[in-house]
Amino acid sequence: MIKYDLIKKEAKTSARLGKIHTNYGTYDTPMFMPVGTQASVKTLSPEELKDIHSGIILSNTYHLWLRPGEDVIDHAGGLHKFMNWDGPILTDSGGFQVFSLANPKDIIEEGVYFKSHLNGDRLFLTPEKSIAIQNKLDSDIAMSFDECPPASADYDYMKKSVERTVRWAKRGKEVHDNPRQALFGIVQGGVYQDLREYSAKETVKLDFDGYSIGGVANDGESKEDMYKAIEYSVPFLPEDKPRYLMGVGEPRDIIEGVIRGIDMFDCVLPTRLARHGHAFTQHGKINIKNAKYKEDFTPIDEECDCYACKHYTKAYIKHLINAKETFGARLLSIHNSRFLIKMTEDLRQAIAEDRLLEYRDNFMEKYYGENK
Amino acid sequence: MIKYDLIKKEAKTSARLGKIHTNYGTYDTPMFMPVGTQASVKTLSPEELKDIHSGIILSNTYHLWLRPGEDVIDHAGGLHKFMNWDGPILTDSGGFQVFSLANPKDIIEEGVYFKSHLNGDRLFLTPEKSIAIQNKLDSDIAMSFDECPPASADYDYMKKSVERTVRWAKRGKEVHDNPRQALFGIVQGGVYQDLREYSAKETVKLDFDGYSIGGVANDGESKEDMYKAIEYSVPFLPEDKPRYLMGVGEPRDIIEGVIRGIDMFDCVLPTRLARHGHAFTQHGKINIKNAKYKEDFTPIDEECDCYACKHYTKAYIKHLINAKETFGARLLSIHNSRFLIKMTEDLRQAIAEDRLLEYRDNFMEKYYGENK
Repeated sequence: MIKYDLIKKEAKTSARLGKIHTNYGTYDTPMFMPVGTQASVKTLSPEELKDIHSGIILSNTYHLWLRPGEDVIDHAGGLHKFMNWDGPILTDSGGFQVFSLANPKDIIEEGVYFKSHLNGDRLFLTPEKSIAIQNKLDSDIAMSFDECPPASADYDYMKKSVERTVRWAKRGKEVHDNPRQALFGIVQGGVYQDLREYSAKETVKLDFDGYSIGGVANDGESKEDMYKAIEYSVPFLPEDKPRYLMGVGEPRDIIEGVIRGIDMFDCVLPTRLARHGHAFTQHGKINIKNAKYKEDFTPIDEECDCYACKHYTKAYIKHLINAKETFGARLLSIHNSRFLIKMTEDLRQAIAEDRLLEYRDNFMEKYYGENK
Repeated sequence: MIKYDLIKKEAKTSARLGKIHTNYGTYDTPMFMPVGTQASVKTLSPEELKDIHSGIILSNTYHLWLRPGEDVIDHAGGLHKFMNWDGPILTDSGGFQVFSLANPKDIIEEGVYFKSHLNGDRLFLTPEKSIAIQNKLDSDIAMSFDECPPASADYDYMKKSVERTVRWAKRGKEVHDNPRQALFGIVQGGVYQDLREYSAKETVKLDFDGYSIGGVANDGESKEDMYKAIEYSVPFLPEDKPRYLMGVGEPRDIIEGVIRGIDMFDCVLPTRLARHGHAFTQHGKINIKNAKYKEDFTPIDEECDCYACKHYTKAYIKHLINAKETFGARLLSIHNSRFLIKMTEDLRQAIAEDRLLEYRDNFMEKYYGENK
């Protein structure tokens, strides 16, 4: 189980400060969660994750189910022991991957048929199976199994999908059987206000330990749609439970999410950008492979307190990325992940001091060059 | 400059204990040097290298010349600052790579024409150029530029090659212009006893700060040939200078080299094996991808003191390697590098106690299953 403490609501927005207590420690919210898809946050050690103040990490049920299999992790003593991470872990339900990685699929009331992205095997995932896998992984927070329809889904399809996702959430909750583990419900409904409201209300009726907003990080969805989806959902979620916006890690989206009352975020963006040589900085994203950094012996970001910025120059990291040395991706992964986590620290400070909109405007000007 | 202290000669072999003092610290010999080809020991941080007690690392002149270029590293303040490694560094001459990576080539008295393995550019490397690059890299120990003929080279070719390598060594020494940097000569001569003797004597006449034995890690050379090449060379090297066997990292070869009076070794083996999922253990090399490790929740090697063995299981590392997570290669790189460095620590202890042959026999039985 987890416990959520609502500590403070910001004066001018829906933002809030909170603390979430788990069996593996307490973390503050708003919080960004680095993603350890396959029981490893790409290129990083648990010590490095601690060093950048990761309060909680996410791991993917779909990937761990396929490889190494939930039984291996169960026999290892759970995911924390398996991967040597003694902080909180959230596992997703596998739904997003089934609908994004594993086409073609066949969705029936019972669950979803799909092909393994590893070997093409025909597999079947159900709400009960997703929960059973997560129970074995023994994460601190499990997610309900949901359908993630494309942003382009029409109203009729989305309505049927949302109704089914509610039924799936109920089925999952009924079989959930790990007293150490919290279970979150997921609000879907795409861009449709009434479906978001319906989904939120029906999911809340099932009384979960927290609530996610899903279907906002799909391809083809606009920022506007994402922010509206949050606004359509949050008012129907209880104040005393954490709220998690799934798959979102672009700096502006984290800020806009926090303003609208979101507590938790996750995204592969910091580590994926790192592998391609991109780095967040206070003045916007840079491509370290750019020729102008060849002899730039300054850190990625003068204001950053991370290991990469303390000890390495842009010129060196550029060289490593050019030379395909994985230590380069590691340094940028440390930096990019720290950047987003530091951002949530700054957001918490801004909430504490009731100056969140001011923080947002300053950030937008500095990072995106946007003037209000 | 460096200073070599000969501390002790073993009673029953040619092995010796020593200490080498450099501007970036002192290390004990015999010592194994991890290889940071492109200014990074693959997957590892400088802190991890310190943690496994790396006394000195090697980096490759050829690779750094091509990318990022020696001027970038010079402007960064030298290789130590560029890569954030404050311990000793040895750079090779580029010779080995020119002859192994960059075919086809054209060897003339002046130097070697070859094609860049990166983009096919026609390049020309000379003894003077190799030394000039290494002067700029500002490593603690530089190597003379030598020809590395294949093990199959016939006597006449090898004789001409060895004579030229001596002339090249002289030319390099004459232009060497970095008072902080030591310069080693290289003994070549393949499998021919008189050529090894000639090469050693002529090279020693040039009075280098240390001596390498080259041409022993080429494809197609037998262990027997390697050990003989050492035996043919060492008697003609001065006692008061360090001896370095180039490119050798197989455990038995390190032991046999030490027995024959070698002080320093380098090899990409520990990190290359790691990337392929192989690990050294006290009982021989294992392939972590083997199905039998699927639920093996013990460390790679119960006797090992490395970070990987302290915190991770074979099952987890197998999963990481299978899933192509680079943290797996990193853990195995830490372990494999530590294994060879720990071996040199054990070898030093055995030398100190005059029981090196006993150590060898025990190791061979345990690791290779070979009974004397």
